[in-house]
Amino acid sequence: MGDQLSTTFAALADPTRRAILSRLTSGEASVTELAAPFEMSLPAVTKHLKVLQRARLISQGREAQWRPCKLSAAPMREAAEWMEPYRRHWEQRLDRLDDYLRDISHKTARRFRKKK
Amino acid sequence: MGDQLSTTFAALADPTRRAILSRLTSGEASVTELAAPFEMSLPAVTKHLKVLQRARLISQGREAQWRPCKLSAAPMREAAEWMEPYRRHWEQRLDRLDDYLRDISHKTARRFRKKK
Repeated sequence: MGDQLSTTFAALADPTRRAILSRLTSGEASVTELAAPFEMSLPAVTKHLKVLQRARLISQGREAQWRPCKLSAAPMREAAEWMEPYRRHWEQRLDRLDDYLRDISHKTARRFRKKK
Repeated sequence: MGDQLSTTFAALADPTRRAILSRLTSGEASVTELAAPFEMSLPAVTKHLKVLQRARLISQGREAQWRPCKLSAAPMREAAEWMEPYRRHWEQRLDRLDDYLRDISHKTARRFRKKK
């Protein structure tokens, strides 16, 4: 471990942390606001926030007294870029599936026309 | 844990497993072929392959005697789809950075023209 990509993916491997990130896409939020939707103690939520902060997926402001948390884009972007070659892979597979379905629908249509 | 997305991200949180997946984007490979680039025992590599198989990121053929491993596209696709809202987030940030840089370069150009 230790590399940024591994740290990013490890931080994303938890539904609570993903829900926190998802909340932050609509804007900054305080720790209390982030904790509100979860049936979890504040220390438990704080622990998740620390994992996200260590992974640099979020940062916490120092200026305001409520110290809002906000998204940091860079690590998520790196993770998405790592996935790009796989995107090509599954798109090719979808294209092949598409060709196959078109092929069988043509064959079915031809058989149907012959019957008439 | 237990949900597919968490299992996918946990499986991706390791450089050896990511390297194995990367090798498989160029086609099927046997366990021995996959193990070759790593300074690792075959059982250690097999352990990583089992994590990838449990996460359904790869599947292993039964037909041929060499039982080739190949990529399964669906879980990676689901993970990439989960990341889409964040893509919009960092693209907006890049747009803002772009606007800012254009703005200061205009201001600098104007100041430069005034001097002349």
